[in-house]
Amino acid sequence: MAERILVVGGNAAGMTAASRAKRLDPALRITVLESSRFISYSICGLPYALTGEVKSHQDLVAFTPQSLKEERGLQARIRVKVQEILPGRRVILCRDLESDEEFELGYDRLVLATGYVPRLPRIVGTELEGLFTVSRLEHGIAMRERLSQSQARRAAIVGGGYIGLMMAQALRTLGLEVMLMERNRHLYSQVDEEMALEIEQELSRQGVELLLGTAVHSLRGRNGRLEAVEAAGKLHAVDLALLDVGVAPNTELARGCGIPCGMSTAVQVDDRGQTPVSGIYAAGNCAETRHLVSGRPIFSALGTTAAKQGRVVGENLSGRRSTFAGSLETSVEKVFGLSVARTGLTLRQALQSGFEADAVTVKARDRASYYPASQSMKVRLVFEKRGGRLLGGQILGGDLAAKRIDTLVTALTAKMSLQDLSQLDLAYAPPYATLWDPIQIAANVGLRKVRRW
Amino acid sequence: MAERILVVGGNAAGMTAASRAKRLDPALRITVLESSRFISYSICGLPYALTGEVKSHQDLVAFTPQSLKEERGLQARIRVKVQEILPGRRVILCRDLESDEEFELGYDRLVLATGYVPRLPRIVGTELEGLFTVSRLEHGIAMRERLSQSQARRAAIVGGGYIGLMMAQALRTLGLEVMLMERNRHLYSQVDEEMALEIEQELSRQGVELLLGTAVHSLRGRNGRLEAVEAAGKLHAVDLALLDVGVAPNTELARGCGIPCGMSTAVQVDDRGQTPVSGIYAAGNCAETRHLVSGRPIFSALGTTAAKQGRVVGENLSGRRSTFAGSLETSVEKVFGLSVARTGLTLRQALQSGFEADAVTVKARDRASYYPASQSMKVRLVFEKRGGRLLGGQILGGDLAAKRIDTLVTALTAKMSLQDLSQLDLAYAPPYATLWDPIQIAANVGLRKVRRW
Repeated sequence: MAERILVVGGNAAGMTAASRAKRLDPALRITVLESSRFISYSICGLPYALTGEVKSHQDLVAFTPQSLKEERGLQARIRVKVQEILPGRRVILCRDLESDEEFELGYDRLVLATGYVPRLPRIVGTELEGLFTVSRLEHGIAMRERLSQSQARRAAIVGGGYIGLMMAQALRTLGLEVMLMERNRHLYSQVDEEMALEIEQELSRQGVELLLGTAVHSLRGRNGRLEAVEAAGKLHAVDLALLDVGVAPNTELARGCGIPCGMSTAVQVDDRGQTPVSGIYAAGNCAETRHLVSGRPIFSALGTTAAKQGRVVGENLSGRRSTFAGSLETSVEKVFGLSVARTGLTLRQALQSGFEADAVTVKARDRASYYPASQSMKVRLVFEKRGGRLLGGQILGGDLAAKRIDTLVTALTAKMSLQDLSQLDLAYAPPYATLWDPIQIAANVGLRKVRRW
Repeated sequence: MAERILVVGGNAAGMTAASRAKRLDPALRITVLESSRFISYSICGLPYALTGEVKSHQDLVAFTPQSLKEERGLQARIRVKVQEILPGRRVILCRDLESDEEFELGYDRLVLATGYVPRLPRIVGTELEGLFTVSRLEHGIAMRERLSQSQARRAAIVGGGYIGLMMAQALRTLGLEVMLMERNRHLYSQVDEEMALEIEQELSRQGVELLLGTAVHSLRGRNGRLEAVEAAGKLHAVDLALLDVGVAPNTELARGCGIPCGMSTAVQVDDRGQTPVSGIYAAGNCAETRHLVSGRPIFSALGTTAAKQGRVVGENLSGRRSTFAGSLETSVEKVFGLSVARTGLTLRQALQSGFEADAVTVKARDRASYYPASQSMKVRLVFEKRGGRLLGGQILGGDLAAKRIDTLVTALTAKMSLQDLSQLDLAYAPPYATLWDPIQIAANVGLRKVRRW
C-alpha cells in the first residue's frame, strides 16, 4: 500500500516538498494541510496587491486546492489547524476551522512546513483593531479592506525591516502619510550603516517621515480601535499601524511532540531535512538551516531558502538521497526607485562571528558613463583581512543593479577571494555594464587592504 | 636610473598596463605609443555615437595624451607607428605618421598591446570607397561623415557577428534600409542555433532584411565607389557596406622580431604576460589567453579580457608577481529590445572540444509573473552528461536578463555543477526575479538529463 504523507503548511516549503515528492514518486498519497484560506501564494507580492499594481490578491495565488489536485495530483485541505502530533501512533490531531470539528489523520511520514510568526512588541495595545502584521495573505486582504472602508490618512510602521520598508512604500504609494519608527539608529540591519543611510535618504525623498532611534512605548486606542502610537515622548495620531519588530519560527507543533529546536530557535534538522523524531521532516522557515559563510545554524525567514529546503525534503520523501547545503540570507528589495540587495555577512555580522574582517564600499556606474540611462550604484564587499576571502556583499542602485548580487552569492558559495572576483570574466556592453564591473572595481579597491601573508 | 617602459597600443590592455604599473611604481618612466589619433576609447560605444544616442565621439574617449599626463603621469604619443623591434639592442623603430619622420626609442621593458585587425573576405572589391570595418574610433568617425554627407539609404552588413549585429542596429536606428548577409545558416555563432533564431526574429521584427546561408561573392563599384553587393546570385544595390567577417590578432610586430605565436594565432605568453623574448610582454587581444573551461589557448577579441591581461602585466612591470587565469569569452549585447549574453562553451563548442555534453533551454519570467513589467527570458545551460558540470550558458531577454550571465560566469569559474546551481541562494523579490531564478529552473530541468554515476 502506498505511503501516506502529510504536509503541514501549504506555502513555499510545504508545496515544493509535496510537488517534488509526487513528481518523483506518483504513488505517494500526499495531503497538504493549511490553516489559512490560501495555499501557494506569494507573500512578497502582497504590497503590490495592496497598492493595486497587482490587480487582485488572487493573482498572487498559484494554486487552489482544486487546481492543485487536477494539475499535480496533490490533496490540499485549507482551514485545518493541526493541533498535536502523536509520533508514537503516527497520527495528528486536527481541527476544521470552519466546522470546529476535531479529527485524526494517520501518516507514514510527516513534513512540518509551518513557517514563521510575527513577533509582537511587549507593550500595551497590541490587541487593538487597526494594528496589522503581515505574514499571511489574509493579513493583506484585511488591510486592504480597512483602507477601502475607512478614510485612513495616517499610518505608522513600527520597525524598519524588510516588511516595514515594503509596507511603508505601499502605504505611501496609496497616498497616506507614513511615519516609520525604528528602535535602532539605522533601519534595515541586514545591511551595514552606510548602506542603510541611502535607504533612509530614499524614504525621506519619497515623503516617509523617519523616526530613527525611536522605541515605541505604547499603542493607544478608544473603543478597541487604534488611535495613536506613543514614541519619543509624544502621541502620534494614526489611523492604522503595521508592526515589523521581527519574526520567529513557528515551532509550537514540533516542540509539542518533543522535537528539539536548535541554537537558532528553529526546528533541528539534519541536512536531509529530517528531525530527530522518526518519520518527521521539517522544511522552510520553521526549520533550522546553516549559514554558508559562518557555518552556524540560523533561522531564515526567506522564501527562497524555504523552497530549496522543501525541494530537498521532497526528494528524500521519494527515496532519493538529497541534501541541503545552506543559505547566505540573500535578499533583494525595491524601495521606491532604489534596489537594495545583500548576501552573506555584513561587516558587523562578520566581526560578531569572529572573523578578522574589513569592508570596502565603492560608487560606480551601472552602465557605460556615456550611455544615456547610466546611473550610479554602490557596491560594498566584506572580506577577511588576511587572504581577502569574500564574506558578504551589499549592492544599492537602480533596476540593473539588483540581480548583480547573484555574482556575489555564487562567489561566496565557491569561497572566492577578492583576487578571484577581480579576474572573473564578467559581461560588458555599454547598455548593461562598464568594462570593469562595479563588483570588480570594489574588489580591486578592497585588495589594497588585504594582507597576502 | 628609473626603468623606461614602452607600451605599443593605447587602448584597453595598453592603457591598463601602463596605468597599473605607474600607480604601483611611480618611478617608472612609461610611454604609450598609438598609431591612431585616439587613446583610451570605447570601441563598443561606437554604434551609439553613430546614431547620436551618445552625442559625440569625444564622449567615448577617457583620456587625451594631455589629460593622461596630468592625471596619471604617463606619456602618450599618438600617430606613431612602431615598425620594428630590435630586441638585441632593446630598441624600437618608429615612424611619426604626421611628419613621416623615422626615429628610434630605447626600452628596458616593452609591452605589446596591438589588439586585433579586421579580416577581409577574399573577394574582389574590398578596396572600394563606402566599405567599412570597425576596429578603431576613426572608422566610426569616417562612417558618420559618410552618412552625413551622402544620401545613404541602403546598407549591407556582411557577417552577423557581434559587430555586424551592433552596426545593423545602429544603421537601422538611423533609418537606413539594412540587409544582413551571413554565410552560415544562422548568425552569431557565439550562441547555439536555437538562441540565434531569437536574435534573427528580433532583427526581422525591427525591419532588418536577413539573408542567411548567403555568401557574398563580390563587391561592385564605379569610379572606386561601392555600388552593389553580389550575393545569392543577385546584385544588391547599396550605398555603403560594413564587413564583419572576423578579426585576427595583430601580431605583425611580434612575429617580425621572432616572438612566436601559439595555436590560437595570437602572441604566445605565459600566465604573467611575458613572451619568450626577454623584456617583452604582450597583453590584450594580440596576446593568447586560456579558455577556463576547455583549457585551450585562445585568441579573444574582448575588451574585458584585454583590460584584465593589461592589469596583470602592469603589476608584473611594477615588480609584483601577478598571474592571469584566463577567459570564458563572456559577452553581452543589446540587439534592439533583446539582450543576448553568453559565456563558456556553446553545445557545439563543447562537443568539438571533446566533452560528452548536453544542453537544456528553458523559458521563464524575469520577474514575478504577476508583477507589471514581468517579461519572458530564455536560459540555456550546456553541461557534462556525467556529473552535470556546467560548461557554458546563454541568456536572452530584456534588460533585467543581461547581467544574470555573470552568475554563470562565476559558477563556471568555480567549476560548479547543475546541482550546485540549483542550490545557490540567488536573490528574489517580485520586481526583480522569481522565487526560483530562471537559471535554477534551467538547472533543475537539466538535472533530469544528468547521469550521477
